[in-house]
Amino acid sequence: MRSEAHFLERIDHYFPREHEFLALGRGDDCAVLRGGTDYCVTSDLFLEGEHFRRDYFSAADIGYKALAVNVSDLAAMGAKPVAFTMDLMAPTSLPDEFWEEFLKSMSGLARQFDMVLAGGDLSRCERLGVSISAFGAPGATGFLRRGNCAPGDILFTVGDFGLARAGLMALEAEGLKARETLPSAVLAHLRPKPKVMIGTLLNAAGIKGLMDLSDGLARDLPRFLGPDLGATLTIDPATLHPNVHAWCGREGLDPVEFAMLGGEDYALLGAVSPFEAGKARSVPGYVEIGTVGRTPGITVNGRPFTNPGFDHFTQ
Amino acid sequence: MRSEAHFLERIDHYFPREHEFLALGRGDDCAVLRGGTDYCVTSDLFLEGEHFRRDYFSAADIGYKALAVNVSDLAAMGAKPVAFTMDLMAPTSLPDEFWEEFLKSMSGLARQFDMVLAGGDLSRCERLGVSISAFGAPGATGFLRRGNCAPGDILFTVGDFGLARAGLMALEAEGLKARETLPSAVLAHLRPKPKVMIGTLLNAAGIKGLMDLSDGLARDLPRFLGPDLGATLTIDPATLHPNVHAWCGREGLDPVEFAMLGGEDYALLGAVSPFEAGKARSVPGYVEIGTVGRTPGITVNGRPFTNPGFDHFTQ
Repeated sequence: MRSEAHFLERIDHYFPREHEFLALGRGDDCAVLRGGTDYCVTSDLFLEGEHFRRDYFSAADIGYKALAVNVSDLAAMGAKPVAFTMDLMAPTSLPDEFWEEFLKSMSGLARQFDMVLAGGDLSRCERLGVSISAFGAPGATGFLRRGNCAPGDILFTVGDFGLARAGLMALEAEGLKARETLPSAVLAHLRPKPKVMIGTLLNAAGIKGLMDLSDGLARDLPRFLGPDLGATLTIDPATLHPNVHAWCGREGLDPVEFAMLGGEDYALLGAVSPFEAGKARSVPGYVEIGTVGRTPGITVNGRPFTNPGFDHFTQ
Repeated sequence: MRSEAHFLERIDHYFPREHEFLALGRGDDCAVLRGGTDYCVTSDLFLEGEHFRRDYFSAADIGYKALAVNVSDLAAMGAKPVAFTMDLMAPTSLPDEFWEEFLKSMSGLARQFDMVLAGGDLSRCERLGVSISAFGAPGATGFLRRGNCAPGDILFTVGDFGLARAGLMALEAEGLKARETLPSAVLAHLRPKPKVMIGTLLNAAGIKGLMDLSDGLARDLPRFLGPDLGATLTIDPATLHPNVHAWCGREGLDPVEFAMLGGEDYALLGAVSPFEAGKARSVPGYVEIGTVGRTPGITVNGRPFTNPGFDHFTQ
């Protein structure tokens, strides 16, 4: 990066300042989000070494995914994306071309969802990192929350799960050569698609709750259910992506268990009453995976599932 | 940090989830800010090695200042602080006691300004860092912006400038021994006081604009004026803090020039029409430093001032 001033000029090149939801765009001490509506707010880190490696993430992949993981949280609220702020930790060594690709890719995703960059901060850092906060407006029924489930409710997912984990493991094992053997898995890890349209449709379909599977089904399902409920899941291996089977076959792993543990797919997990599931069932990609149970604990295909998933600090 | 789960439990210990401005607190994919009002939004990084050193910043200082620099941006909008999100980059090596002090200190500042922690993210990182986004509601006349100045308007500051820079330089030179020789300067650097009450009073006093001096007057004044205006400043050395004089005397520096370059004081810079300055003049700490000029360029005490201040990437 040649200078802060030059970088801010490139930001202005790629990101408009105006937006119908902004009363004041970036450039002042604060931006101003227009009143008249609730706003949902989320904040996610995307750090070199923890969330990505430059070995196999291009500048364009990094710019894309740093924003996409935040947009996925808005999708999981059934929200309409509106705006975001970005705090950027930038190694001085990265050349102008890196930042052009990074900003161009991020701005393409922002344009796709009509999101405005409302502000942020920039600092030198030897480790590349992005911290984004994103804002969304309510969908058809407001915002979709976790919990709210009752025993007997149908649990469903939209989107592959386990696929991004297969991509990550293949990339770690073989680098970019994995693009040839497991192309869908690699793409799921490098360029996850935020399911904004799906979230909007589910919001209008009268479901009871929704969340995104950022840490994997094993870890996220208990968060979705809350402490008092459990779930009986039936996961048909045939519903898992062929790239998941390919990876698990090669490594001698059980595909269903592998998929339960896979994070970062940004698939959606939802619940709907069996008496009101008609509309939800017509949403593209909707797959029923089980029902909500009366007591805590999860069974998968008839067997208790106890693997707690991933804790970022203990594993 | 022993585990993510334990850390989140400590967050819950120190930070309530409920707030009158929140329709939904942290714990879901997003929090929800209640509609019915505009919100101003700011985002700032606080990174080890760039913004602080653990040599002389205690855990409590770090937790305090990471939030304070964001609150200062809300103060500069004349806003009422409401909420914040925090993305935390945490070295695994830091002990529980560090995080207790950090969270306790940050929560004390949040309580002082009635701010709720609405969400965030946590990741391992060998470098300690905090990225905060903060939200504020409008003051008496809405939000105070930069610009809006006309030739002849009075420029004023509230709060010391140059003081935090003297503190930083003394801490870099002598470490915590500087607390004895330059106590106010060291405190200004470690624990800057966000001027929320002052911002609120100025908002009600009918001023034309306000900003916070995070990068120093030399660099921030042109941002405040915009590209078409200049300023004629008269800075009486007697208005500078005795610790600024002490440091400059010792180092053979010109106190006024030093103060012009000093960032991180989080003093406020404002403009007011000379015909409507009565109320502003009664605000505690209000000091007139000059007038807005018809053409670009800044003179200080009769001489052109051309030092451009600090660019984080070119210096």
